[in-house]
Amino acid sequence: MRHLIFFLISFLSINAQAQDAKTIRTIYDLALTQSEAYENLRVLCKDIGHRLSGSEGADSAVVWGQRVLGKLELDTIYLQEITVPHWERGRKEKAYFYNEKGKNMLDVCALGGSISTGMNQFIKGDLLDVKSLDEVNNLPDSLVKGKIIFYNRPMDPKKISTFSAYGSCVDQRYSGAIEAAKKGAIAVIVRSMNVRQDDFPHTGSMAYEDGVDSIPAFAISTNGADYLSENVTKYGNLELNLKSFCKSYPDKISHNVIGEIKGSEFPDEYITVGGHLDSWDMGEGAHDDGAGVVQSIEVLHLLNLMNIKPKHSIRVVLFMNEENGNRGGKHYAERAAAKNEKHLMALESDRGGFSPRGFSVNGTEKQ
Amino acid sequence: MRHLIFFLISFLSINAQAQDAKTIRTIYDLALTQSEAYENLRVLCKDIGHRLSGSEGADSAVVWGQRVLGKLELDTIYLQEITVPHWERGRKEKAYFYNEKGKNMLDVCALGGSISTGMNQFIKGDLLDVKSLDEVNNLPDSLVKGKIIFYNRPMDPKKISTFSAYGSCVDQRYSGAIEAAKKGAIAVIVRSMNVRQDDFPHTGSMAYEDGVDSIPAFAISTNGADYLSENVTKYGNLELNLKSFCKSYPDKISHNVIGEIKGSEFPDEYITVGGHLDSWDMGEGAHDDGAGVVQSIEVLHLLNLMNIKPKHSIRVVLFMNEENGNRGGKHYAERAAAKNEKHLMALESDRGGFSPRGFSVNGTEKQ
Repeated sequence: MRHLIFFLISFLSINAQAQDAKTIRTIYDLALTQSEAYENLRVLCKDIGHRLSGSEGADSAVVWGQRVLGKLELDTIYLQEITVPHWERGRKEKAYFYNEKGKNMLDVCALGGSISTGMNQFIKGDLLDVKSLDEVNNLPDSLVKGKIIFYNRPMDPKKISTFSAYGSCVDQRYSGAIEAAKKGAIAVIVRSMNVRQDDFPHTGSMAYEDGVDSIPAFAISTNGADYLSENVTKYGNLELNLKSFCKSYPDKISHNVIGEIKGSEFPDEYITVGGHLDSWDMGEGAHDDGAGVVQSIEVLHLLNLMNIKPKHSIRVVLFMNEENGNRGGKHYAERAAAKNEKHLMALESDRGGFSPRGFSVNGTEKQ
Repeated sequence: MRHLIFFLISFLSINAQAQDAKTIRTIYDLALTQSEAYENLRVLCKDIGHRLSGSEGADSAVVWGQRVLGKLELDTIYLQEITVPHWERGRKEKAYFYNEKGKNMLDVCALGGSISTGMNQFIKGDLLDVKSLDEVNNLPDSLVKGKIIFYNRPMDPKKISTFSAYGSCVDQRYSGAIEAAKKGAIAVIVRSMNVRQDDFPHTGSMAYEDGVDSIPAFAISTNGADYLSENVTKYGNLELNLKSFCKSYPDKISHNVIGEIKGSEFPDEYITVGGHLDSWDMGEGAHDDGAGVVQSIEVLHLLNLMNIKPKHSIRVVLFMNEENGNRGGKHYAERAAAKNEKHLMALESDRGGFSPRGFSVNGTEKQ
């Protein structure tokens, strides 16, 4: 009898595996033939375009998200209201310095959330070329005061994981203005987070700190950073002129967009996938994070196509405001905790739409 | 004593492994920081551009290949002379048909090596929509005679390996004109080898056969193929008008470009890497096969940078005429056999410059 049971279990298990393999193959086939992900991505990037929190584009993205989810067979679609920062870049920034060859224009942009250089005026200051926050912290105030701090530690091109190269440099961008202002600097300019040598300054998030002066913060292209660095080396004191037009406005109302298929057996247990709807204002947010958004929506679309009624609830969350505040993500987590929702898994897909190379999970001991 | 020897061997082997790991890491680092591959690719694609065998671009590519290899520290650089086909597309091809809405233009191009439709004239014929060579073979001659055969079997988008999807369709393009002409068809038009739906006709190689009439052969974009197919279904007899201006000229002299580092211990044993210099005439040949060319050159460049003197001879071969004849590859093989050269390995890299996903080898039992 035990043998029979064992045999039956083995048989059922092999059978279940075969069934799973078939289902997975069907998912592949449908994704390769009937996916709406690329068309959704085209609309999000080309018809809506950039969509920084608080912008018209972000509002359109919320409406678009509802509409796209509305075309699927879901049990619920709803919005989670949040307030988001509203920052606008304004006109194109300018930066230049003089050397014996004359005026040298540089490719710069304001970092997201930066204050401007003031009512349509340049600020000027001698450049101080540094490689780290620590270097600034260890300098005497007298050396930093009145200067423009130039954070120029490059991303390490030898790191095959560019995320790791990014992670080991981005403190300059995020906290550079705070540490420089503590010592009396009047502005910061940060080498773009980019392993390529090119002329595009990369914006990104930065922070100010209560009790520390807010000073204007810029990114400079990698080519520009190298050129500036050469000139600092050659001429010693170099006066840089910077101008930006950006401005923070009062917070605005925005939303996470959520769609759900209710689980047939465990409706109160959630498997959540998502991406973030907002993007920076200088691109169209295809990789960051249009890809994550359309992939996540496609999960529900494929389940629909296969007519699968999952046992657990499947939820897609299109998060607002990942880029400059993560208020959508935080609010989602707070609401989930307040409602005591059990999440079997939650995945925000935000690493771009590149060739998948595998699957890995990491976390702390506690997690 | 035996234990000591065993210990020593283990120690040396671990040591050698550690040394290998270090060397491989150095190769990575140099490739990521000092590679000239992208700049070489830029020059090959942008400054030289398309370079079909027999064209001015192909001649420039040979000169470029010599010059780039000439900048490396190699023991020999030489040319292998070959004759190559010389075919030119001429002016842009045209195709149209009429339906109740009026004149419908289609996106077509001549297949590489095709004859033209004649001195500045259209050929006209009723379309016959087929899915395979076999289908044509099995039709009575009377049904095919005087017709334009439309090969419309699409690449299977469910095949994750697009090379495999390509391989299972490309017989239509390569042999379609032969099989159709055997039955009296006056031209063929072949659905482009493309899993995307778009408006770009893809050229590619095709063959004629001695004793069988040569008839004009075209590719049509995937969108165009679908549109044409719909119209054939709707209207039954559909007369297609085709015009091409292409022409074959007498063969020309061209060359494989070869560079070598002589092996210190086994100079007569070769490890060969290569890509093909020629490209089709409608693009700039970045993936096909600029990538293979610059990767192969980079192998020698990296060895130079590391000051490695290999034990076996390392050879890079920039093959001419892979696309429409493979005469460079054949000549190289003939010469290697005639000189009785021992090749430990020979790799032509010709699968585009995509994310590497692994390494595999296959072949027949005999190989």
